[in-house]
Amino acid sequence: MSKYCFGIDLGGTTVKLGLFDLAGNILEKWEIKTRTQDHGSLILPDIAAALKDKMKERKIALEEVAGAGIGVPGPVTEDGTVQMAVNLGWGKFNAEKTFSELTGLKVKVANDANVAALGEMWKGGGEGYSFVTLATLGTGVGGGIILDGKILTGVHGAGAEIGHMHVEEDETEVCGCGGKGCLEQYASATGIARTARKLLETTDKPSVLRNCPEVSAKAVFDAVKAGDELAKEVAEIFGRYLGNAFAVIAAVVDPEIFVIGGGVSKAGEILLTYINKYYQKNAFRGTRDTKFALAKLGNDAGIYGAAKLVL
Amino acid sequence: MSKYCFGIDLGGTTVKLGLFDLAGNILEKWEIKTRTQDHGSLILPDIAAALKDKMKERKIALEEVAGAGIGVPGPVTEDGTVQMAVNLGWGKFNAEKTFSELTGLKVKVANDANVAALGEMWKGGGEGYSFVTLATLGTGVGGGIILDGKILTGVHGAGAEIGHMHVEEDETEVCGCGGKGCLEQYASATGIARTARKLLETTDKPSVLRNCPEVSAKAVFDAVKAGDELAKEVAEIFGRYLGNAFAVIAAVVDPEIFVIGGGVSKAGEILLTYINKYYQKNAFRGTRDTKFALAKLGNDAGIYGAAKLVL
Repeated sequence: MSKYCFGIDLGGTTVKLGLFDLAGNILEKWEIKTRTQDHGSLILPDIAAALKDKMKERKIALEEVAGAGIGVPGPVTEDGTVQMAVNLGWGKFNAEKTFSELTGLKVKVANDANVAALGEMWKGGGEGYSFVTLATLGTGVGGGIILDGKILTGVHGAGAEIGHMHVEEDETEVCGCGGKGCLEQYASATGIARTARKLLETTDKPSVLRNCPEVSAKAVFDAVKAGDELAKEVAEIFGRYLGNAFAVIAAVVDPEIFVIGGGVSKAGEILLTYINKYYQKNAFRGTRDTKFALAKLGNDAGIYGAAKLVL
Repeated sequence: MSKYCFGIDLGGTTVKLGLFDLAGNILEKWEIKTRTQDHGSLILPDIAAALKDKMKERKIALEEVAGAGIGVPGPVTEDGTVQMAVNLGWGKFNAEKTFSELTGLKVKVANDANVAALGEMWKGGGEGYSFVTLATLGTGVGGGIILDGKILTGVHGAGAEIGHMHVEEDETEVCGCGGKGCLEQYASATGIARTARKLLETTDKPSVLRNCPEVSAKAVFDAVKAGDELAKEVAEIFGRYLGNAFAVIAAVVDPEIFVIGGGVSKAGEILLTYINKYYQKNAFRGTRDTKFALAKLGNDAGIYGAAKLVL
């Protein structure tokens, strides 16, 4: 009878691994290095060896493991085919099949941002809900949409690529994806800092941010909390783009709750105030009572969600 | 053994009914009046009587009918609860339960725009696909999103309310929903005519539209086909709003195909040219090969989709 499962969050430099019981309690977590040489061909064998070592160490038999879930930094289609994962050196292949052959386990593979959303639904900011949209505000903006407890993958594995929603017609700078005017350019940590630098350069307004050696999203929200007017303007711009984007998402998938994660979410409840202001202004009437929450699992969302994939 | 099913499209003035075999061939279609007096309390009994009459006439036994699906003009949650249907005089109640009690049949109830999308997926412009987004461009803009053959309902029944996606920050006129800057204000027949009137009023450009007693979406696209420059400008504005909205939807639900229906779709393939131009410009890289097609079932999409609901 199965008692355990593994959740694996595969990043470009580190693989995070978690051993869970079937109720979702984490029993142990650890990390290994991601070896990306040889087109990333060592990565899955390395992880398989790590799982086998752990099972040996804890005297866990293969039949006691319900399976292993993996979150991958790239688009993954429903059948576990990774379309591409640039940071791992991977091209297109079925990682589910490969890892299952390596381990003898039931394996599910999905996109890491989607997997994090599943984790936050299971044991984080979206706990108790089954229709959850997660926005991860970090260097970029990632997203995951959970409908009735399941990941919305999309036919190209591009479901919930909310960072690349086109939200600004007049943008002149190019986004990492090659497009212009993507949500990520305004709502990521990088985007918030960019907005702040623009306002600092184009106005004479006094601001504590003028004394910062490096203007970061953290510095902006610290300044907002201290009452800095220019920082508040930056927060309004951030809130307008993200609140409007959530209003649009609500008119498309109509979730129960939006969960905000990633480094920017450390600014806390004040973020929700700015986002919700514009959400209320522009959301379709029927969706205005949708809830907002901060993510709770931090960097562990990936391993939680990956474990949940196989349960 | 069941051989038949009923598809019912419930509108504010007429109820369209269809008798189908289980392969989706339509055997007969007919209409009855929608009697909206007494808070619409006669509507479901009237439809039940119509189905019983038809079964009697064709000597169809109750056990030969797989079920009856109904599309309703208002938000409907997953369990068949109509939240409200203003045009029918209905408040909140479980129409699925009521109609099942009236007929003894298996019943499924869903929002009419969502049901039309299911119909177009089954036997229309989206045939052969199971991840379909339908945009119905009529007086307003309706939408339906089908994921893996199933309707995306949303927790408030507001899934695929794409007509009320907030797409324009600078709008001053109010949309029917009470919001400002909704997609419907630019991409509906009404919206296209409004854009044309604005351009006619604010410019001196010559245009055949200046001779129209009433500027309609049809007149605009007829003029586009005749090479009218001002009409082409209107079409560009339409294409920009709808193409950008589709690009955003693709970054959220990532469908296989967009299907365009409603009265405006009678303009034909030329619509797709204008929409696709802006879609290609602003869609996330991974979703640029998503297909576009015109709807095929016209006013019958609702009865086809409703029949499919119970199969």
